[in-house]
Amino acid sequence: MENRNRHFFGSDFVRLPEILKDVLKEEGLKAGCRICIIADSNTAPLYAEDVKTCLSSVFSETDLFVIPAGEENKTLDSVKSIYAFLVERHYDRHDMLAALGGGVIGDMTGFAAATYMRGIPFIQIPTTLLAQVDSSIGGKTGVDFDGYKNMVGAFHLPKLIYVNADTLKTLPEEQFASGMGEVLKTALLADEDFYSWLLSNMDGIIGYDPDVILPMIRKTASIKERIVERDPTEKGERVLLNLGHTIGHAIEKYMDFKMLHGKCVALGVIAAARISFERGYLSTEELFEIRDVCAAFGLPIFADGIDDHKILALTKSDKKMSGGKIRFILLKSIGRAEAEDDVSDSELLSGIKFINGDEIAYEE
Amino acid sequence: MENRNRHFFGSDFVRLPEILKDVLKEEGLKAGCRICIIADSNTAPLYAEDVKTCLSSVFSETDLFVIPAGEENKTLDSVKSIYAFLVERHYDRHDMLAALGGGVIGDMTGFAAATYMRGIPFIQIPTTLLAQVDSSIGGKTGVDFDGYKNMVGAFHLPKLIYVNADTLKTLPEEQFASGMGEVLKTALLADEDFYSWLLSNMDGIIGYDPDVILPMIRKTASIKERIVERDPTEKGERVLLNLGHTIGHAIEKYMDFKMLHGKCVALGVIAAARISFERGYLSTEELFEIRDVCAAFGLPIFADGIDDHKILALTKSDKKMSGGKIRFILLKSIGRAEAEDDVSDSELLSGIKFINGDEIAYEE
Repeated sequence: MENRNRHFFGSDFVRLPEILKDVLKEEGLKAGCRICIIADSNTAPLYAEDVKTCLSSVFSETDLFVIPAGEENKTLDSVKSIYAFLVERHYDRHDMLAALGGGVIGDMTGFAAATYMRGIPFIQIPTTLLAQVDSSIGGKTGVDFDGYKNMVGAFHLPKLIYVNADTLKTLPEEQFASGMGEVLKTALLADEDFYSWLLSNMDGIIGYDPDVILPMIRKTASIKERIVERDPTEKGERVLLNLGHTIGHAIEKYMDFKMLHGKCVALGVIAAARISFERGYLSTEELFEIRDVCAAFGLPIFADGIDDHKILALTKSDKKMSGGKIRFILLKSIGRAEAEDDVSDSELLSGIKFINGDEIAYEE
Repeated sequence: MENRNRHFFGSDFVRLPEILKDVLKEEGLKAGCRICIIADSNTAPLYAEDVKTCLSSVFSETDLFVIPAGEENKTLDSVKSIYAFLVERHYDRHDMLAALGGGVIGDMTGFAAATYMRGIPFIQIPTTLLAQVDSSIGGKTGVDFDGYKNMVGAFHLPKLIYVNADTLKTLPEEQFASGMGEVLKTALLADEDFYSWLLSNMDGIIGYDPDVILPMIRKTASIKERIVERDPTEKGERVLLNLGHTIGHAIEKYMDFKMLHGKCVALGVIAAARISFERGYLSTEELFEIRDVCAAFGLPIFADGIDDHKILALTKSDKKMSGGKIRFILLKSIGRAEAEDDVSDSELLSGIKFINGDEIAYEE
């Protein structure tokens, strides 16, 4: 897997053709090659035409394939429908895919690109905050299987990630909040200064001030990119990006994927912070500040009606196990995460109880 | 993708545990990890118990998952059944798969390993000549899709290829012949001396003499391995291994996969040799010697009842296209192949006619 990765941040699609011409040249692809935009039924009506117009000046043909919106469509069957579309049009290794949308579209398009003819190039045009700061970066691609998130997938880096922050204007508020879950997570695990910056710029973020949002996206993306470049296949440091994900994924599964990913991650981060606090890594003030920041960004701080023991059981089937043991990401301090594999069930339960809305009475 | 690749050639399964212990150590896998043998319904009754016994001294658990035999089962649905089996048993990234069987099982198991949890380790225990000399080597994995061979796949190297040549004793004669198609192809494209060796040792090969067969497997495998190591993802030299495959795949598809792969490849090699002859690269003697050798090894030299123009059309949908053009592999001389992309339709037709049994009368 190559690590070279082009990344552009802006507020429109204007520079897309010019950058793509460079990408094609670098990849040794002929100007006559084709591109298929994969979008979901929410994003396609908003941006597919604009993007298609931009791409048509670079590619000989620009196709569009639309998948019904929603995590429940992040399946092998959707990927099969992409394969069938490409096969029918005789796409070959010199053609490309473009993922236009959020994490679901990015992960699925990336997986289709990783496996169609054993790998064809693709680019990411993320249109949700979560995709812009997290899921489009680092080459993790995949689909859900049997109710397990991303159980089937591959590592396949996009040749370009083109962020048009202007697309956030059409993003539903709760999707924006979901993205903020990953922004916060990233700051907490790797960069104390950025975490402080987020606190100081809270008004600008909540008010969608582009002068705050764009640098925030760029900073979050660059932190993730740095970590991924040092550890592309998650043998070491990259696992830290899973802060909040062990319990977060369990909640996501418990909720039958009805709660947005970044919201579940935020709950997972709060639970992980609680465990870190109990181990003496974080102070009371730090723990509650993390929870307050989540609330301020429209993220949940309690999950109502969850069953602690069921959540615990669900953490066991998470991918982030190491020979039967959970590798749990803890905050050793604000801005510094570490993976530890000695977190006990009672510690996990204590973290889960801290975010269980039904248990507030006796917990606080 | 790493290239380091362990490869063992022998005539029993005795050394499997010892070598696997080294593999686990090198991979940093715990001794307590599990392995799931994937075999087809032909091979499982013959060898699964032996292999399971050997593996049980190394792994904490040894599972067996059996898939119905036949190329028609080389599908995403079969791979999904493997995923489901692994999910149910909570296999994680520290467990392994073992492909026990021919090319279909090797390709599918490899693809399941490449994509389950974004990649888990696997080993190859090829039990057909074709798998031992060709398909187990080089990390190409995949399944057929929509009637197209290996249309969906990934590059994923096995951690070990363990060849027990004794398994060839139970191999049907025509499967042995099919493997010889790839042996011949390999000699022709890369090693004139080995081609001569095959001619001199024809009796030993046909008589299944282990003192000839084992060095033949080892030599063929080492040629392929050398080429693949220099070009793991088929950006250059590796494409030469497709000698005979453009027309071979077209015939395979035309025959609805009823003719064995190596036999189709042999026909494709003869057709490619004919085109090479017409370009003045091969002499009449060399062309007909290639055809005679095929016949001697039980390979077809004519395909009866094929439609030249349909075969031609089918070559166009082959994966080995370069931006709409076919990269055709020609023999510049015995033991030296080259990829050329200026082979015309009339040249292709001439090659196809040369192997069309119905056209012998006017062709010779």
